[in-house]
Amino acid sequence: MSEKKLGSQTFALACPPSLLGWASVVGKKEGDGPLGANFDLISQDSYFGEKTWEKAERAMQRLALTQALEKSGLAAVSLDALFGGDLNNQCIATSYAARSLGVPFFGLYGACSTMAESLALAALLLDGGFGTQTAAIASSHFCTAERQYRTPLEYGGQRTPTAQWTATASGAVILGQNGPGPYVTHVTAGKIVDRGIKDANNMGAAMAPAAYDTLKTHFSDTGRTPDFYDLIVTGDLGKLGKALLEELFRQDGVEFSNYNDCGLMLFDLEHQDVHCGGSGCGCSASVLTGVLLDGVKSGQYQNILFCATGALHSPTALGQGESIPGICHAVAISNTR
Amino acid sequence: MSEKKLGSQTFALACPPSLLGWASVVGKKEGDGPLGANFDLISQDSYFGEKTWEKAERAMQRLALTQALEKSGLAAVSLDALFGGDLNNQCIATSYAARSLGVPFFGLYGACSTMAESLALAALLLDGGFGTQTAAIASSHFCTAERQYRTPLEYGGQRTPTAQWTATASGAVILGQNGPGPYVTHVTAGKIVDRGIKDANNMGAAMAPAAYDTLKTHFSDTGRTPDFYDLIVTGDLGKLGKALLEELFRQDGVEFSNYNDCGLMLFDLEHQDVHCGGSGCGCSASVLTGVLLDGVKSGQYQNILFCATGALHSPTALGQGESIPGICHAVAISNTR
Repeated sequence: MSEKKLGSQTFALACPPSLLGWASVVGKKEGDGPLGANFDLISQDSYFGEKTWEKAERAMQRLALTQALEKSGLAAVSLDALFGGDLNNQCIATSYAARSLGVPFFGLYGACSTMAESLALAALLLDGGFGTQTAAIASSHFCTAERQYRTPLEYGGQRTPTAQWTATASGAVILGQNGPGPYVTHVTAGKIVDRGIKDANNMGAAMAPAAYDTLKTHFSDTGRTPDFYDLIVTGDLGKLGKALLEELFRQDGVEFSNYNDCGLMLFDLEHQDVHCGGSGCGCSASVLTGVLLDGVKSGQYQNILFCATGALHSPTALGQGESIPGICHAVAISNTR
Repeated sequence: MSEKKLGSQTFALACPPSLLGWASVVGKKEGDGPLGANFDLISQDSYFGEKTWEKAERAMQRLALTQALEKSGLAAVSLDALFGGDLNNQCIATSYAARSLGVPFFGLYGACSTMAESLALAALLLDGGFGTQTAAIASSHFCTAERQYRTPLEYGGQRTPTAQWTATASGAVILGQNGPGPYVTHVTAGKIVDRGIKDANNMGAAMAPAAYDTLKTHFSDTGRTPDFYDLIVTGDLGKLGKALLEELFRQDGVEFSNYNDCGLMLFDLEHQDVHCGGSGCGCSASVLTGVLLDGVKSGQYQNILFCATGALHSPTALGQGESIPGICHAVAISNTR
């Protein structure tokens, strides 16, 4: 019936949309990390010139979108749709960042999987023939996330060894029906997977089974093997989650030679006191727009698989004894159509 | 370039997807209202047999989806994607309701516009050729929303005259690439509109300008006039917001003869102590799935325009002095292709 559907969960784009421009905006700590030289903008001020952290996150997201539009040579009004989200209750960073743009807006909530979710939907819309340019955006801010999900920052709670550090970062991508690439060729939409993890300081363990499920499905749906990709990158499983994912594949007899995790790429785990690595929607969003897409554009990578992972819980849900549902959306990006 | 795009914000579906089945599940107060006889399921227990209101909302949403699938004669696993959301922080009603379904899931945050947003994206995905069946869902629960957005219920805060009553309700729709209709023919994706309203107890005023913007754009994009539709229905502007929208159109010389609001349809404003009417994602979701789609199916309506409205604020944003951004997505539904 549907020629663009492969296997159980993968959409194959008939005329892969081109990524026209992208930008990353990050905070000081992220700028001090191993990828510092690659970001478009690094703010030394965690407030980004605003009076609250929530307004700071909005400003950061707006900067990323503005930069991405500029690099694409497009104005906001030429966008047929903007897809985006963040971790704040009611996704206020994105709604307020998009408020004055005058662009059709689809708000998403995918926790830390948001950059893949927004990129996927922005690409599917174009390949469906609905318009000529779309945008995808996501952000997180250490200070908005910590006080909302855990404790007031002033409380100075001790972090457990499995904890990750929510990145202060944002990434934006502009997509076009046509262009010189890179191209979004496939989307494997994730199912929710919950293996019973209840520790909000162990997101890696909560999300790794979802990443395993989506990756396994992607390979089976497309008939590709892991070595088809020059780089497979998960959203932010961190050190523990990455090890768990590798172990799950090892049990299937699959060893990755080309796999990394944005949470490990963004920070220097030895020297930056981030425990298991980076997290937050902005982590994978900024790694994608800071280094990965440039790598595809330059030919360093021919094909990458971008798999952002999210933990779909809330403090209220965990307070009511619930476990953490994980999700992972995979987007295949190639430098040729 | 794009033949499916009309004017600035409207997507015209080339092969309009069919709505295969739909269901509504509501609470006692909603069941006591004027539409009571039309809902699939009315629970006398606000806990829906669960121990917390958040788990109740999840159970309600799950019931709606199960019923809608049953009425479509489909199993959950036959869905190529599920789009949905709710008002809870981190959209936990939807994520947990979808947790064990094994269906590719796209979480949305559109506040009370969610039913139109999910229906729009579910339809666009199918018309884009990505799969054969999708689902759209949304819910709200008076008790989860009140304590999250305003005050603990036990506090018994007095409500202001412009306040609306968050509906305890859920609606689910199953869509197919083909079928006997009704059909989704057009989607006008909303821009964010903010006219400076800061009163969280006056959502109607905050959202009416967004509804005006989307409706006006829809008419201009499609070349249709309001009387093309047998019914134009806004999401939940309530009594005040509906009057404001009518006034805005009156200034353009447009008088509606076929316009209503889900917030006014769901409750009896004279006798149910709901002040300006119903609100919440579940309000428009349950009115759509409880009466509107049956009306199109039966031929009572040939064409309707379903325009769910959302207020994209949060308690944190308002506490920081912000105004309330509104959004409205319009979905045109017809009983013929």
